[in-house]
Amino acid sequence: MPDLTPLLVPGERKIVLLVLDGAGDIPVERFGWRTPLEAARTPNLDALAATGVSGRLIPVAPGVTPGSVIGHLALFGYDPESTYIGRGAIDALGIGLELRPGDVVARANLATVRDGVVADRRAGRLDTEIARQLCEKVARTVPSIAGVEVRVIAVRQHRVVVLFRGEGLSPEVTDSDPQREGLPPEPIRPRVPAAEKMAAVADEFRRRAAEVLGANGAPANYLLLRGFEKRPNLPPFSERYGLRAAAIAVYPTYRGIARACGMDVLGDPSTVQEAFELYRRHHDEYDFFFIHYKETDSAGEDGDFDRKRRAIEELDAALPLLRARMPDVLAVTADHSTPVAMRAHSWHPVPLLVVSPFTGRDGTTRFTEAECARGGLGLGRSVELMPLLLAHACRLRKYGA
Amino acid sequence: MPDLTPLLVPGERKIVLLVLDGAGDIPVERFGWRTPLEAARTPNLDALAATGVSGRLIPVAPGVTPGSVIGHLALFGYDPESTYIGRGAIDALGIGLELRPGDVVARANLATVRDGVVADRRAGRLDTEIARQLCEKVARTVPSIAGVEVRVIAVRQHRVVVLFRGEGLSPEVTDSDPQREGLPPEPIRPRVPAAEKMAAVADEFRRRAAEVLGANGAPANYLLLRGFEKRPNLPPFSERYGLRAAAIAVYPTYRGIARACGMDVLGDPSTVQEAFELYRRHHDEYDFFFIHYKETDSAGEDGDFDRKRRAIEELDAALPLLRARMPDVLAVTADHSTPVAMRAHSWHPVPLLVVSPFTGRDGTTRFTEAECARGGLGLGRSVELMPLLLAHACRLRKYGA
Repeated sequence: MPDLTPLLVPGERKIVLLVLDGAGDIPVERFGWRTPLEAARTPNLDALAATGVSGRLIPVAPGVTPGSVIGHLALFGYDPESTYIGRGAIDALGIGLELRPGDVVARANLATVRDGVVADRRAGRLDTEIARQLCEKVARTVPSIAGVEVRVIAVRQHRVVVLFRGEGLSPEVTDSDPQREGLPPEPIRPRVPAAEKMAAVADEFRRRAAEVLGANGAPANYLLLRGFEKRPNLPPFSERYGLRAAAIAVYPTYRGIARACGMDVLGDPSTVQEAFELYRRHHDEYDFFFIHYKETDSAGEDGDFDRKRRAIEELDAALPLLRARMPDVLAVTADHSTPVAMRAHSWHPVPLLVVSPFTGRDGTTRFTEAECARGGLGLGRSVELMPLLLAHACRLRKYGA
Repeated sequence: MPDLTPLLVPGERKIVLLVLDGAGDIPVERFGWRTPLEAARTPNLDALAATGVSGRLIPVAPGVTPGSVIGHLALFGYDPESTYIGRGAIDALGIGLELRPGDVVARANLATVRDGVVADRRAGRLDTEIARQLCEKVARTVPSIAGVEVRVIAVRQHRVVVLFRGEGLSPEVTDSDPQREGLPPEPIRPRVPAAEKMAAVADEFRRRAAEVLGANGAPANYLLLRGFEKRPNLPPFSERYGLRAAAIAVYPTYRGIARACGMDVLGDPSTVQEAFELYRRHHDEYDFFFIHYKETDSAGEDGDFDRKRRAIEELDAALPLLRARMPDVLAVTADHSTPVAMRAHSWHPVPLLVVSPFTGRDGTTRFTEAECARGGLGLGRSVELMPLLLAHACRLRKYGA
């Protein structure tokens, strides 16, 4: 792929990338050799399919099953083999925490430690509201250590983010989370000499958080820290593509990924209808909209064929809201497959549909795995999608003499 | 392709890779616009095709015709552009010769030299048994040179392997084989200073072998040496994929390639039935089986359409032996095409069929070039096959956050 930056030209055309998380599936006998996309009644997607062209995307590489973050980064055009962002930074960004240069974040679990060993890494997946109260208590008692500001924020259930803000911090330290139950929490140690200060602060935090939580008598009596990292350093959409980009997502993880790519996160929708309404309201302010739909993936992870089918039908039923303010370029795809029969992410290629004045038509009339497999766009990689969308938006000049 | 090593997880699922050597073909008018795979009656392959998904593999790169070794290395997941193994090492491994670190092997031809020039590089493709007697005679007369052990082993007809075992040997020497008839054999010279000992030993061997063979009065009066090399240094399947791997092949070359990849070579089958029986007998001992079928390639090289069709039908007729102990993941493909109309290897993509619980179906019902071209796996590269098979065997964890 040539560097696109010198090819970028300004433009007025709007791009919408609608990601149906985990929508791709495989047909198995148990469900009549049909996939949820095939079984669903989708008049609006069908109409879009008939006016655009389809194809398939391999998320990372053949046989490689992507995590949610890497699957989206690939769709956003960041090379999934050389781009790494950990979940700590994504979670922090997802809950709206501003990450500054020099900050170090870690993921943490509220856990149960008994007789010196980890008895439950998730403290019974405790209620988010209780977790929030525990985190506030730790934060009040340990607001800073040796001049380093410490913030402790509950994300969801047992999942917590800890932010360290101060001079001379390095993420090159070991985890306290032993990753297995039955083992004792580990002291946090520097991996390199430059991380001695960070290790001392983090280990002191580990001890003091245990004191505060232990005094509480609750099952969640420990914070296990892991995955220390700095603010991700991705070139933002504005620089990389010359696009004012916005994200519309219900779930924090996808807001976090979008923020890491320099997108503005719009509103706080709780349904796909609200998401499409947000798009319409902000249509004139941005060039690119990433709209995330989670329900297809959740149903796949739960192995619930009917729920996945219904999630697709609900998305389809809301599509008129989007079509009422049809973008110049619309792409519908998935970050990865989550086959119902596998109850997990998979490596299978995902369907892709692109509608723009320059797609022509390819004779496909549905947005399904099999129909997209015979579509005009053929079989590509997720990382190739953004250049294609920029081209359809007339935002790439001719390459070479 | 990301490095798979950190993604590997242990598993119980069995993988069989069945390679129909040179099976791919092109339809030409002379044979009614059909390929041997299309003309053959293949009820068992058809049944497999109906339950799996198909596609095509480009062996190395568009337009690049692979040799047998590189075609297989690509199927085994070794990058064909950066992996090199010469035929000398493959032949040596193929006949079961143990290669130790520091050994140097060369290929040699029993040739006829007359009036100081090479009159026949293959000495009339002499009988293997006669070649064996001549090699033994040379080996007895020249067991070592300057403390370097020399072994001379007939492979087949005029083809011989010479092994040099001793201290301080380098393969960086020139060939004595001028590669053309009508030219004199050349002295063996060092290419680098560190190869002076090797050159002196090999050139002394060249002279003494000529004395021994010349005294014999037979047409095969010279050993032309070429392609000096060391033991190949490929990461074995166990390390690269965490697989206990076995190879079942009638011909030495394919046993040699498999040994170079760290596979155990099972038994000494002479038919495809015996090959499948060997697989069944050793099913529980290995995770991965490479089964090689040569007859399709030989018939293609001879330009014999009917023999190639019959070879496919014979393979098909034996398939129930394999299906009686169906592996969790079965891949059927070829290392390259050998079109009957070309009487040679070619660059054309090869058909691929994969059957596993996670393939779904793609509506294709035959294992032919045209049917696989519309299959759900699309058009990939041979080197991408192993990651796909590992994924289907549930041996790759999720990549990235």
